[in-house]
Amino acid sequence: MQAFDTLSVRFNEYFSIDHFPTSTPTLYDPNRYFLQMGGKRVRPVAVLMGNELFDQINDDAWPVASAIELFHNFTLIHDDIMDEAPLRRGMVTVHQKYGSSTALLAGDVMLVQAYDYLNRIDTSYSQRIINIFNITARQVCEGQQLDMDFEKLENVSLQDYLEMIALKTSVLLAASLKIGAVLGGASKGNALHLYEFGKNLGIAFQIQDDYLDAFGDPAKFGKQVGGDILANKKTFLLIHALEVASDEQKAVLKTLLKTNPSDKVEKVLEIFKACKVDQWANELKEKYYNDAMYHLDEIAVMSKRKEPLVGLAKFLIQREY
Amino acid sequence: MQAFDTLSVRFNEYFSIDHFPTSTPTLYDPNRYFLQMGGKRVRPVAVLMGNELFDQINDDAWPVASAIELFHNFTLIHDDIMDEAPLRRGMVTVHQKYGSSTALLAGDVMLVQAYDYLNRIDTSYSQRIINIFNITARQVCEGQQLDMDFEKLENVSLQDYLEMIALKTSVLLAASLKIGAVLGGASKGNALHLYEFGKNLGIAFQIQDDYLDAFGDPAKFGKQVGGDILANKKTFLLIHALEVASDEQKAVLKTLLKTNPSDKVEKVLEIFKACKVDQWANELKEKYYNDAMYHLDEIAVMSKRKEPLVGLAKFLIQREY
Repeated sequence: MQAFDTLSVRFNEYFSIDHFPTSTPTLYDPNRYFLQMGGKRVRPVAVLMGNELFDQINDDAWPVASAIELFHNFTLIHDDIMDEAPLRRGMVTVHQKYGSSTALLAGDVMLVQAYDYLNRIDTSYSQRIINIFNITARQVCEGQQLDMDFEKLENVSLQDYLEMIALKTSVLLAASLKIGAVLGGASKGNALHLYEFGKNLGIAFQIQDDYLDAFGDPAKFGKQVGGDILANKKTFLLIHALEVASDEQKAVLKTLLKTNPSDKVEKVLEIFKACKVDQWANELKEKYYNDAMYHLDEIAVMSKRKEPLVGLAKFLIQREY
Repeated sequence: MQAFDTLSVRFNEYFSIDHFPTSTPTLYDPNRYFLQMGGKRVRPVAVLMGNELFDQINDDAWPVASAIELFHNFTLIHDDIMDEAPLRRGMVTVHQKYGSSTALLAGDVMLVQAYDYLNRIDTSYSQRIINIFNITARQVCEGQQLDMDFEKLENVSLQDYLEMIALKTSVLLAASLKIGAVLGGASKGNALHLYEFGKNLGIAFQIQDDYLDAFGDPAKFGKQVGGDILANKKTFLLIHALEVASDEQKAVLKTLLKTNPSDKVEKVLEIFKACKVDQWANELKEKYYNDAMYHLDEIAVMSKRKEPLVGLAKFLIQREY
């Protein structure tokens, strides 16, 4: 079994080919531009790790991992159009650089290319794998739509938010691991536990992401603190705060959301701290992390084989606090 | 063998199910809205006809035909966003009714659903069929991109325009027939001839569409005459006129394109007629129609079996002039 870093290097090497025809560069160059921005490649590596948990890496795991990464990039290109995001990973987004229409089409053809890779694998398991992929693709679209729906609502329950965020961000990691498990010949029960490991880990990661945006050390995490607060983004923190705050705190919070005073971040954080939102978020993250580890434990393979996945969990979730 | 009308009724019956989950109506209702607008269903019926040319209709032809129709509708939803079209088939477009972001996502999930239907067919031929589907999907995206590219150019050669229009409008009809042929167990040679039949027929149809927009009888064809001229759309007619017109005519044409005089349609049509663009277009349509019929003739099955396809060609192409 290989660690995340090793597999990440191997995947990046495999994935560095040109995925698109040389004809019609006005359509395909935007995709080349976007892919060369890089990324952590967590999801394709999860395919390889899910596979290697049960057996040596299947030749088909590589095109499948590529399909997952192309799918992920397709969602990013389209999400950036919907969010009107000017930057991604510090670089100009596709729709900003090439126009929305081309970004839309480039995303479409990126999704087609993902299916092209899935169509190259052995037909003895292709139907099962493509079925997991399709269910997941649908869920990711549902998550994005619910996210847009929620942005228009004043109140969203924690339960609804959790379901949305799981669809939008966690099911793809979970499905990547599960598809890897299928490629490795895992039993249905083991594949399901691996899926739940990924889903819970993904939710823990998202809670951490929200936490760091508000309470993180900017020098350490390379992000502007309070970006979510300035953008009035619905996060775990805001939703919980609106649930537990006193009527007075709620009124202040809602006024802060509607206006943009220069000390907005500071004032919102004050309420978050008064409501112990930071502590609550850490406990919730811990709960999901523990649920993830429970499902990893339940998988019926020797614990030595699980070490890379434990490493992945530690890589994604910082637990020193 | 069944005629287009018979198969169209049967397909519409099969296709009238709900293709989407009942959850997340904000995502799926836009797709339901769009699909109930209807349409001629030429492409899915072409799958059934391509199949029946060689053998009785395979059970798998129905989900495949559904996939083709969903793919076609996905391209229409996304094209309408790119073209900022307010209406489609006389009804408000999806992005106008539900917003561009939802239309984008709804289109995405429509494409995923198309692949879901393709994933249900027998794996003995699924790879071959999905491969044809993927190549075609890519070509349709290329055609749309080239169309947008050409709109920005002052001069486009007839050859380049022909290649673009074939990608944008004809390859999907061709591929639908070919996929049907594969489902009917056709030989590679026969499947290729059927593909070429569809491709040439599609181009002939497009030439006719351009012709009718300029020279058609509005009472007969239910379209505003001169819509393409008013929109400065690049069509077969305009591209040929710019190739054969005198320098003086060209100068007048280009001025007309840049301005919007009240007699624009009349003036452009005058030049078209002076350049015999109408006659040329009819001859070009006839050439592609004849090429289509040549490829249909070449298919090694009894001519009786070809009657529904001859009927399809006559249904699509009016030849009384």
